[in-house]
Amino acid sequence: MSIIKLTLAYDGSNYHGWQRQTKLSTVQAALESALSRLTQKKIIVYGAGRTYAKVHALAQVAHFSSDNTRIKIDDWQRALNALLPDDIVVGAAVQVDDDFHARFSAKNKQYRYCIHNGRQRSAFTHRTAWFIRQTLDLSQMSEAATALTGTHCFTSFCATGSEVKNHRVDLKRIGMTKKDDQLTLTFEASRFLQYMVRNLVGFLVEVGRGQRFANEVPGILAAKDRRAAGLTAPAHGLFLVKVDY
Amino acid sequence: MSIIKLTLAYDGSNYHGWQRQTKLSTVQAALESALSRLTQKKIIVYGAGRTYAKVHALAQVAHFSSDNTRIKIDDWQRALNALLPDDIVVGAAVQVDDDFHARFSAKNKQYRYCIHNGRQRSAFTHRTAWFIRQTLDLSQMSEAATALTGTHCFTSFCATGSEVKNHRVDLKRIGMTKKDDQLTLTFEASRFLQYMVRNLVGFLVEVGRGQRFANEVPGILAAKDRRAAGLTAPAHGLFLVKVDY
Repeated sequence: MSIIKLTLAYDGSNYHGWQRQTKLSTVQAALESALSRLTQKKIIVYGAGRTYAKVHALAQVAHFSSDNTRIKIDDWQRALNALLPDDIVVGAAVQVDDDFHARFSAKNKQYRYCIHNGRQRSAFTHRTAWFIRQTLDLSQMSEAATALTGTHCFTSFCATGSEVKNHRVDLKRIGMTKKDDQLTLTFEASRFLQYMVRNLVGFLVEVGRGQRFANEVPGILAAKDRRAAGLTAPAHGLFLVKVDY
Repeated sequence: MSIIKLTLAYDGSNYHGWQRQTKLSTVQAALESALSRLTQKKIIVYGAGRTYAKVHALAQVAHFSSDNTRIKIDDWQRALNALLPDDIVVGAAVQVDDDFHARFSAKNKQYRYCIHNGRQRSAFTHRTAWFIRQTLDLSQMSEAATALTGTHCFTSFCATGSEVKNHRVDLKRIGMTKKDDQLTLTFEASRFLQYMVRNLVGFLVEVGRGQRFANEVPGILAAKDRRAAGLTAPAHGLFLVKVDY
């Protein structure tokens, strides 16, 4: 029995997220279906993290175990890519130690959020970036991002109803770059709470619009109340960029 | 009565091309439907050129006439963008001379063809670029492009069955740039024949693969026979970039 680790990119536009759901098209289901066709066995894959409907991945990680001896390790990638739909691509397939688990072995994750911040919407980025016409105050946003970075209890930025009880997260970095109309926010932490990135982006955009202010951050974190932080950014601008082990 | 000129971008993935067709979703139909909703009148738009199913545009041009006095010229763009689907965007709306015609007044057109030339397919460009895994010989392609440039009878690169009888075209320029895995070909001429760009790209790719050679160009042009040139590139890599008047 060997454990195979897959790194995969997908355009989440046409999927109801990562996790298998009855009757709905999901990335996990598409991957399991390709693996089952390939091996003629039922195979279950475990992802590093769930992504929600419309969320994309540049390098999601998943693993599965296989007793297949016919398929050489160098062949999994090509064989899977031949069976997967156009919007899912396996970037690498490697054999890993038996105790590897895509989710539990993860040490660090990086997400990216793309905002198309221009005078008019784009016919080509509408699936992969949040369109915001209004000019954003990037220096205020950057100041708020700095205030949010570090180890905090992020309850105010976690979906209400989340089952995770410990909301203490070391948010190592929020990066912000602007190139032409494309504003990119990067988030790095050992783990993220439910909707955390989209809630952080929603707040940062409100700051950029001058509706909220960087100096409100300590109060919002201290409130430990989702209602204190406000807006949730839409799903389609979010990318899972990488998972470190 | 005023003539309004629209410049518009669209992702053609979900359309059966530009031209209105019964029961099929097309860009012209979407635009006319938005204009009719806006003005409460039936409006017909005329495009600079048809684009086929899956073909995109960065700046297609279209015109229509309107006797609407309620909508100011500066308001058409915003009003239309509010009604159009996400994958069609009006970049500009201006009033033009009464004798302007999007198709007949056009002096020059530019097309772009995008090839994703990398080791593996991309989950994000599969709608907007032709994926070619094999390494292409760019210097041979460039030599063939130079041989194709100029005024020639392009019958061998024109769809059989095309109604246009005169196949003499002054192909002013074929540009070629490569950035990372993205190979971009640019074509400029006062007019193009049916499928001409896709047929030129198909041939150039065969040259890049070493299946055809630059020195075959004079013979292929002289043959005046579509069968002499070979492959037609798929529609989804093609963009109408601009139309000059």
